Amino acid sequence: MALPSTAALAARHARIRESLETLSLEALIVTPPANIRYLSNFAGSAGILVLTRDAVHLLIDFRYHEALRELQASPSACPGLRMWEVPASYEEALIGCLADIGVTPVGFEAAHVTVARYEWWRETIAGRQLDITWRSTERIVEQARMVKDAAEIAILREAAARLGQVLPPVLAAVRPGVSERSVAAVIESSMREAGYERIAFDTIVASGPHSAMPHYRAGTRSLAAGDLVVLDFGGVLDGYCCDLTRTVSIGPPSREVRRVYDAVRDAHAAAVAAVRPGIDASAVDAAARDVLRDRGLGEAFGHGTGHGLGLDVHEEPRIGRPRADLPPVTLAPGMVFTIEPGAYLPGFGGVRIEDDVLVTESGVELLTSLPRELMTC
Amino acid sequence: MALPSTAALAARHARIRESLETLSLEALIVTPPANIRYLSNFAGSAGILVLTRDAVHLLIDFRYHEALRELQASPSACPGLRMWEVPASYEEALIGCLADIGVTPVGFEAAHVTVARYEWWRETIAGRQLDITWRSTERIVEQARMVKDAAEIAILREAAARLGQVLPPVLAAVRPGVSERSVAAVIESSMREAGYERIAFDTIVASGPHSAMPHYRAGTRSLAAGDLVVLDFGGVLDGYCCDLTRTVSIGPPSREVRRVYDAVRDAHAAAVAAVRPGIDASAVDAAARDVLRDRGLGEAFGHGTGHGLGLDVHEEPRIGRPRADLPPVTLAPGMVFTIEPGAYLPGFGGVRIEDDVLVTESGVELLTSLPRELMTC
Repeated sequence: MALPSTAALAARHARIRESLETLSLEALIVTPPANIRYLSNFAGSAGILVLTRDAVHLLIDFRYHEALRELQASPSACPGLRMWEVPASYEEALIGCLADIGVTPVGFEAAHVTVARYEWWRETIAGRQLDITWRSTERIVEQARMVKDAAEIAILREAAARLGQVLPPVLAAVRPGVSERSVAAVIESSMREAGYERIAFDTIVASGPHSAMPHYRAGTRSLAAGDLVVLDFGGVLDGYCCDLTRTVSIGPPSREVRRVYDAVRDAHAAAVAAVRPGIDASAVDAAARDVLRDRGLGEAFGHGTGHGLGLDVHEEPRIGRPRADLPPVTLAPGMVFTIEPGAYLPGFGGVRIEDDVLVTESGVELLTSLPRELMTC
Repeated sequence: MALPSTAALAARHARIRESLETLSLEALIVTPPANIRYLSNFAGSAGILVLTRDAVHLLIDFRYHEALRELQASPSACPGLRMWEVPASYEEALIGCLADIGVTPVGFEAAHVTVARYEWWRETIAGRQLDITWRSTERIVEQARMVKDAAEIAILREAAARLGQVLPPVLAAVRPGVSERSVAAVIESSMREAGYERIAFDTIVASGPHSAMPHYRAGTRSLAAGDLVVLDFGGVLDGYCCDLTRTVSIGPPSREVRRVYDAVRDAHAAAVAAVRPGIDASAVDAAARDVLRDRGLGEAFGHGTGHGLGLDVHEEPRIGRPRADLPPVTLAPGMVFTIEPGAYLPGFGGVRIEDDVLVTESGVELLTSLPRELMTC
């Protein structure tokens, strides 16, 4: 896949600049690597980006010069880029850049800047008597990132599709006597084989009693007859994440296993069916939750139904119950998120089924399309 | 390996409480997962810990109840633990906990709390007319974590030793025509085989021109005769990280390759030889840097010589040039860090050699002890 083009980046810049205009800001300091990548295609693990009305100032150190030079010579070059060399301290370099370009007021992302960092910026600016006014901002880049553009959708579609190559060898490895970690190793080598540049998060292989722990990872336990095994994994392709969960039964499932599984599968189907533009994200959560509650499994489903997917494996929109401390989100075409209801019964086991979906003009597109019926290994 | 015991946790609590005493604080809010794990053995990806003079309040949601119950039934149970259920919002639950336990002043970690989060805490406390005073703190838990206790050293030693099982199959896979990503897949499956629970960071397989980029990861390029290949990888064992880099030559090395390699190897040896308690961490960096400068490679070594290793793959102490904006660190027995000088020549290639070391009473112990001579594949 190709990186987003220079034109795609320019459109993103235009959108952020509209927000700056609205907030009467002359610049926005961007610090999280995913936000920097979104605005520049630069994928280093360090860097500070300052977006002004007419330029993109990127502060990076020695380690990334060569990578940036290659990027800027490509069709995915960042438009309006000016590189600033960081010889030692990123914080010093930022103050130097701001003093040099002389713009104010400057916005910073309150959700990403720590109190220690902000205090240092303020004190240094004051100590040097620089005329810079700071303003905290919220979710400017995150809101833009929530609705994917065509380049992002193409990558996300491909990232999800490749999971189809990963699942068969994984299912072949799920056998009694095999350790959770051995299955995780097969998952991760299959993801490399499929072309993912890295895993998106710690692979989960939760067997037997562990399957009742939604955030268990993978340990030394060996799979045994009668186990439910939750397999939750995802890869990163050209920076974008996919995320899949399937639950399998070791040997024939009991009647109770089948009942719980069917409830989760039906909750999953209800949530997928609910997705369309214009509704509140919490309505998708409610669709899944209602099914599980009706089957007596409301208490067993303690997490949200899903999360946004993109450059981060957990991003907006959040697909969960409404929360007083968070703004509601209305679904719009281009949003990509997971749908992953589950039921966890300590001492018995757990089931989770997860797919990735794209909100379309007319409803929903399933990006992952692997079988969702209970598989027996 | 076993998790740190209840007694080991109690000793850590005592150390943090001494800092609270010194700062006249009644409680410390701890938010980064690694700091929470250090103080409780709880290894979830979400949670808030509030350490008071006589208790450890742990706020967690549904997903982690089962894991915490198992932990508390083990010999690694967290002493003085009180669990607080988080039904929806961690921030709401924290305010509820603080209001209930009624301690003030309360410290928070300025390097880990965002401006947005702190503003919400302050406004909510003010809005509810609660009598809580906030104070920002710096590096309380980080300073404790910098000097490893016996339980941590045992795990770090084992984590590093197991890299000896990983390297041979990796070297066997390094051949002309093989892609960087295929080598990365072998590295990662070998790490699983060796028993690591996950990889510590994105595996680097940087071949040919890519080897000149210190933070390149692994791509589709196929290894070719004449390449230098930088292999940088590490695993996590019981939460603790190891980190190793070796550079190999595909086919016989040129005279210039050998010259650059020998310079980096000598810089590495000089840095290791410099390690002992009582010196400034920057002296270890200077030892490596002096060698490379004397060989005309000062400009080619643009990063620091090393970084602390522990629950995080990058933690204190920083082994680099002195910086005006950071406090100096004096080496002490129990500190564990990497030594990883390199030389990067765009258009030619790069070399890096990295090992993990422990500061002992008398000097240094190499935790990784694999051959450091240039290997030809």
